[in-house]
Amino acid sequence: MTYGLYYWDGIQGRGEFVRLALEDAGADYIDVTREPGRGTREMMKLMESTAEPRIPFAPPFLRDGDQIISHVANILSYLGPRLGLAPKEEALRWFANGLQLTITDFIAEVHDTHHPIATSKYYEEQKVEAKDRAVEFVTNRIPKFLGYFERVLEQNPDGSGHAVGCSISYVDLSLFQVIEGLRYAFPKAMRHYERQYSELLKLHASVKARPNIAAYLASPRRLAFNENGIFRRYPELDIEP
Amino acid sequence: MTYGLYYWDGIQGRGEFVRLALEDAGADYIDVTREPGRGTREMMKLMESTAEPRIPFAPPFLRDGDQIISHVANILSYLGPRLGLAPKEEALRWFANGLQLTITDFIAEVHDTHHPIATSKYYEEQKVEAKDRAVEFVTNRIPKFLGYFERVLEQNPDGSGHAVGCSISYVDLSLFQVIEGLRYAFPKAMRHYERQYSELLKLHASVKARPNIAAYLASPRRLAFNENGIFRRYPELDIEP
Repeated sequence: MTYGLYYWDGIQGRGEFVRLALEDAGADYIDVTREPGRGTREMMKLMESTAEPRIPFAPPFLRDGDQIISHVANILSYLGPRLGLAPKEEALRWFANGLQLTITDFIAEVHDTHHPIATSKYYEEQKVEAKDRAVEFVTNRIPKFLGYFERVLEQNPDGSGHAVGCSISYVDLSLFQVIEGLRYAFPKAMRHYERQYSELLKLHASVKARPNIAAYLASPRRLAFNENGIFRRYPELDIEP
Repeated sequence: MTYGLYYWDGIQGRGEFVRLALEDAGADYIDVTREPGRGTREMMKLMESTAEPRIPFAPPFLRDGDQIISHVANILSYLGPRLGLAPKEEALRWFANGLQLTITDFIAEVHDTHHPIATSKYYEEQKVEAKDRAVEFVTNRIPKFLGYFERVLEQNPDGSGHAVGCSISYVDLSLFQVIEGLRYAFPKAMRHYERQYSELLKLHASVKARPNIAAYLASPRRLAFNENGIFRRYPELDIEP
């Protein structure tokens, strides 16, 4: 069965957390909006349908046969066991989903550093407020979130270097992407902070070295970060902590 | 088995979405921080533990025996089947979780109308930006989200008046709370919008009339909305759409 991933073309964005799981598992999937002749129109048609019974609010969403699943954490919760990227123990699955939802919240805050007032307006129309929000984000929110994930790694009773249990899960892949994105968007801040989060950095390096991830990152399927995505490099927002 | 709900005392906040499910089901639970002699200290101790293997990032979280589950959507996904508040069909459970995550995003946007710049600062320190964000929220975001939920109700093939399938679920209870909160925080805007969302209003009324919900709303366990919670009544943010 071929999975269909629906997400905006041209950016990594939230879709990237799903792509990393599909790529690591070597799953058979189509990135629908990047397919010649299909593209964004098919995605919008589905979202705007007045007949479809289970419409998603926004991309990304996944199609698996008749099933449509929306929201990154929901998609990963669905795919995890199917791709061998979720813990076997049910108790750990609830924990994994909680971690993924914390990542979701963090990503929303990353987005709001460049869009603190209105998603319907350009960054340039809210630059002053973005600067203020970035000060808060870099000073308080980055260490709060990364400090939490570092503790999760440290306090994992399996001492495995993984976020959950004793093996790789979609949460590890997402934490890799969080570090990648922060390094792109806030290089100055991250140079300052990174030494404090040695467990996270080890995890990042180990994910990057996984054969399927390394192959994906080197492929044209991995888009570069850019200033239409969630992680954006605006030097004026890269505050010195 | 008694469930333990951990959330900030004194506000409805995000904990309220969990309370409504527990109350509707008549479940045996303790609102831990409101217990004399336990309170917030016990919650903080758990969150700050350097030994506990599965620490939550933030309240609310639920304790069920040894299992700790954090994030509203995760908690409701866990409780739903146990409380008879989730659809039986697995396909519908994925849809329900997706809807709950859309509600989660909406609630985060409600919060940011009064805290667009920094959660570490008071509303009074970001009033100017809050006004701008509220204009965007009332003008674009309320109709986008409520319009979506209205369509979900209209396009439910079961035609049941419920968000998912043919019977009550935790999603319905959460949508009730969304309407309650918006009416409290944005009464002027809601008077303008409500006539457009007749299915949502019918759902709201039907949840409110459920015996256990009615009893809960009339009890001292239901705190009033206030200006420490997520839905806050600041007249200057209640824009005319």
